[in-house]
Amino acid sequence: MAASRTASAARTRHREAAEFTPAEFAGRVERARRLMTEQRLDGLMVTSEANLEYLSGFTTQFAWNSPTRPWYFVLPREGEAAAVIPEIGAGNWRATSWCRDIATWPSPTPENEGLDLLAGRIARIPRRFGRFGVELGAESRLGMPVADLLRLRELIQPVETADCIPVLRALRFVKSPAEIARIRHICRIASDAFDRLPRLARIGDSEKEICRKFAADLLLRGADKVPYTSIGTGKGGYSSIIMGPTGRRLARGDILLIDTGARYAGYFCDFDRNVAYGDPGDAAKRIHDLLWRATEAGIRAAVPGNTAAQVFHAQAKVLEDAGIALGNVGRFGHGLGKAMTEHPSNKPIDRTVIEPGAVLTIEPSAMYGDGKILVHEENLVVTEDGPKLLSRRAPREMPVVRV
Amino acid sequence: MAASRTASAARTRHREAAEFTPAEFAGRVERARRLMTEQRLDGLMVTSEANLEYLSGFTTQFAWNSPTRPWYFVLPREGEAAAVIPEIGAGNWRATSWCRDIATWPSPTPENEGLDLLAGRIARIPRRFGRFGVELGAESRLGMPVADLLRLRELIQPVETADCIPVLRALRFVKSPAEIARIRHICRIASDAFDRLPRLARIGDSEKEICRKFAADLLLRGADKVPYTSIGTGKGGYSSIIMGPTGRRLARGDILLIDTGARYAGYFCDFDRNVAYGDPGDAAKRIHDLLWRATEAGIRAAVPGNTAAQVFHAQAKVLEDAGIALGNVGRFGHGLGKAMTEHPSNKPIDRTVIEPGAVLTIEPSAMYGDGKILVHEENLVVTEDGPKLLSRRAPREMPVVRV
Repeated sequence: MAASRTASAARTRHREAAEFTPAEFAGRVERARRLMTEQRLDGLMVTSEANLEYLSGFTTQFAWNSPTRPWYFVLPREGEAAAVIPEIGAGNWRATSWCRDIATWPSPTPENEGLDLLAGRIARIPRRFGRFGVELGAESRLGMPVADLLRLRELIQPVETADCIPVLRALRFVKSPAEIARIRHICRIASDAFDRLPRLARIGDSEKEICRKFAADLLLRGADKVPYTSIGTGKGGYSSIIMGPTGRRLARGDILLIDTGARYAGYFCDFDRNVAYGDPGDAAKRIHDLLWRATEAGIRAAVPGNTAAQVFHAQAKVLEDAGIALGNVGRFGHGLGKAMTEHPSNKPIDRTVIEPGAVLTIEPSAMYGDGKILVHEENLVVTEDGPKLLSRRAPREMPVVRV
Repeated sequence: MAASRTASAARTRHREAAEFTPAEFAGRVERARRLMTEQRLDGLMVTSEANLEYLSGFTTQFAWNSPTRPWYFVLPREGEAAAVIPEIGAGNWRATSWCRDIATWPSPTPENEGLDLLAGRIARIPRRFGRFGVELGAESRLGMPVADLLRLRELIQPVETADCIPVLRALRFVKSPAEIARIRHICRIASDAFDRLPRLARIGDSEKEICRKFAADLLLRGADKVPYTSIGTGKGGYSSIIMGPTGRRLARGDILLIDTGARYAGYFCDFDRNVAYGDPGDAAKRIHDLLWRATEAGIRAAVPGNTAAQVFHAQAKVLEDAGIALGNVGRFGHGLGKAMTEHPSNKPIDRTVIEPGAVLTIEPSAMYGDGKILVHEENLVVTEDGPKLLSRRAPREMPVVRV
């Protein structure tokens, strides 16, 4: 125990972010209702972790790790919000959510997982548009079986179901200061862990061992969860940036990439770092420098009024001017918040206008050599005064561990 | 570094489970096809982590942490299986899946996330029943936006969509020896971590700190991921068994519960342990003993031919005979495997017949005192020779840390 306490004591502790205030949720609900009017919805229901937690404040690990029981949160355009949830979760709901109207059923009851209760709540919503929003659209994942949603659709007729994702996307795109504080917190933790990475990952360690040590380090520094630690290793570079860890052992001459999505209080960081074990070679050094400059250009372009496409083009231009093939990722960064990747996508077809409060990743990648890829990534928040980095900026030269 | 290496060296290392063989997947596909004939399906498509990984072998952290891009795996009743996946994942697919027929598109392309490619593959499937299976049913979560599934349903007409969950549920219910080896591996790791818990969690630690230390310990012992660490603390007992960690600090006289769902190579353990910091009091001691005996009864009942309901009743009888109120969990254990909770549920309405190869949790809970609940949980595999424990059996008496 003495040993691990010593190791732990060496880790910088950042002050924990504050709890969300009642005003935070009142603001979200007010904005949601304005957007519901725009989208002609009398109400909406959310079932997925990010959307349900965002609107209700309900915090749980259980609901999202056990697909047996669905959890529903209903927000009408006018009138009281309601939780329709399994009996097992009532206490947890009361302890974490602002919403006091809770209906429960003794789940699991696969023949009817609260659908009658839910339909009853929806039927009470004042009707103006005859449309009720559910999670259907782009980048969404429904938190209940589809067959049950289709049954619900019948049960609530003549009210039509419509997509509520445009409402949630607009809401979640612009982060509040309290949300940004949480993302900043996890970015600091990950920045500290990345600073230690060259000493943590050692020649002879397998990729799996490196990922486990790195995730443990993030936890001991204050991350709540580390769902994502992709890794690439290889002589002079790696060939995939989204690979799970393999049994391959880190060797002299390797470049190591780790990309992490770690969570704190319901919010993600998402960035990566490269480390060379011995000289990475001229090709990788050149690409690293170009990507660093592309990242600078992307950061500078992340200002209110620019589009996600412009944030892409600013990065791409640096690489194209140097005659470099862009990576196969399909975009150069994306929104970040309660999901590790969210709206928008920094790519030519995405005309989303960047607003103050948007949190973005800047993530250029380039191909080189024989099927190798290199990637950089930083996290920032857009403000009236321009972009503010949330991750600690990577050094222009790739860190080299002497081996 | 010396410090943390010392701590790490003190952790028992269990030999890693073997890779799945080609025969493992061939067996799954053969069983799937037999079940598809029974369910009158010409083919099926899976999009969720557990089902896609189960059938295709594709291993990724990326796909399930980034909801931007969907991933589809199509298995016809006759003919070749096909992956329809984002371009970014082609290399990863080739490195991990047995399936060599890969179609890609340059995702993210929200206007059409591979739906035309997917419909094209489905159109080629030989038709006998005119029905194509998608993930609709109980305990499922679709891995693509529902709006896209509804569009696909139109695109593949006159082929009807039907539920493929009965096929996947039957397949995944009976585990192969290689699957059981993975669950055993993570159960050993968690058993070791729980053995250390009384020294790891200290008076004055917050619940959050305890969960982070415990998850880090699991990782350093060889867990790949620790998605779930619920915790309960309180004087003489706790009041919820599914709470996320709070800022509450462990105090003298507390009972501490941790329940963990940790993962290794795509498989979960799911069990818990109780520890008292000082004398837990007579009420908690009595309930703990009854739950230990209820668990014994549940383990003994987990034999081929018994139903999940009988596994419930065996546990419930011990508590009811003592006049104890059952917990509010809704069941006394469940299936376990690629999901932390899966079919069946040990509860009176579930008549699923237990078969050799089924992996179950035995999880009785009881209410006592002023709104307190106590829970036990063990993991086992059902065999022709009776139940075999996968978790290291909890001691009959609650471990007491002298404080």
